Amino acid sequence: MREQFQEELAAVTTTLVEMAGLVKVAMNNATTALLTADLSLAEKVIADDLIIDETQHELDARTINLIARQSPVATDLRTLVTSLRMSADLERMGDLAHHIAKSARMRYPATAVPPELSLTIEEMGRVCGNIIDKMSLVLKNRDTDLALELEKDDDEIDLLHRKIITTLLDPNWQHGIETAIDMTLLGRYYERCADHAVSIARRVYFLVTGKYANERA
Amino acid sequence: MREQFQEELAAVTTTLVEMAGLVKVAMNNATTALLTADLSLAEKVIADDLIIDETQHELDARTINLIARQSPVATDLRTLVTSLRMSADLERMGDLAHHIAKSARMRYPATAVPPELSLTIEEMGRVCGNIIDKMSLVLKNRDTDLALELEKDDDEIDLLHRKIITTLLDPNWQHGIETAIDMTLLGRYYERCADHAVSIARRVYFLVTGKYANERA
Repeated sequence: MREQFQEELAAVTTTLVEMAGLVKVAMNNATTALLTADLSLAEKVIADDLIIDETQHELDARTINLIARQSPVATDLRTLVTSLRMSADLERMGDLAHHIAKSARMRYPATAVPPELSLTIEEMGRVCGNIIDKMSLVLKNRDTDLALELEKDDDEIDLLHRKIITTLLDPNWQHGIETAIDMTLLGRYYERCADHAVSIARRVYFLVTGKYANERA
Repeated sequence: MREQFQEELAAVTTTLVEMAGLVKVAMNNATTALLTADLSLAEKVIADDLIIDETQHELDARTINLIARQSPVATDLRTLVTSLRMSADLERMGDLAHHIAKSARMRYPATAVPPELSLTIEEMGRVCGNIIDKMSLVLKNRDTDLALELEKDDDEIDLLHRKIITTLLDPNWQHGIETAIDMTLLGRYYERCADHAVSIARRVYFLVTGKYANERA
């Protein structure tokens, strides 16, 4: 009985890591679709978001069922409750990839991102992808050192976000208000996606150490 | 024992309704601070967000403790798990009020909102406040009819959001890119706040009826 419970707990983590993999692919594809005006790739991200949503529903049902059947207490209960929170973070990250893909679709056949910002967006996509990869390892291995690293990576996203705003406010900006609105929202989507990844790493850190990662100083 | 459990369950709902009250005040104050460039009111919203965060922590700890002590199953367990999700929604709504207040503080002593948009923002604040009030009643009375009404109110927020974007794209827009960025983000904050309120109403609807409010048609 106890052994089976531990297996089911491990399977919950496995599904969270799988969800993280789906989110990583969605964010990468959304960024590529955005930068290359690839309509079919954008449509794929939008359609595949349903798979992430369904994975969350299935996982949450399984988690709640596990709580009901096993009446866990202490660490096991906290692990399961935290899993519910992390699946919600991952589902939201999928939504943000979906928003980015919709922005690509809306501007097709034009590219939503003007030339002077395409490197910055590419970089945001790359850093966001790295953050998701690290977060997956934090999830999989309960790696608290890596969880702390994510706090620094998140600063990189904030810097890139500020770079977008600085570019928009440059007197030489010549792409008008509509593109500025698009870029403001796109910057926000990447930033929020990274926030959720950092939040997942913090949840793992707290689960393992009983301390808050962002209050360690 | 059973009676005490029911009392504790009811107390969880009472705290959620209290949190909703705090969020309502925060959103109202944030909107007033934004429209009247009231720095001290903005500071108050920013400081008071900690109270919402602490209420969430205390409530979640109580909820998890209740699950651990009482090993609830079926409806009772689902109610407690849903409470954890709703407290997360409410906490996030508090963050969004906090973002709006920070926008007011950043532009002080100027007003962040230009004259031609102040009525639209006032209206967004008003509709958002109504949505939060209704959501509180849905929470308090498990009122599923009112939960369905919220879906329509949310359309109103989307209309107002589109009105902001239309104003920004008008060739006569003369407040430049910086104000356009501010307004894009502010519109998004109100929209997300209403989304979370609707999401809470949907959770109550599902808890009571076992059906999804947005799939009723």
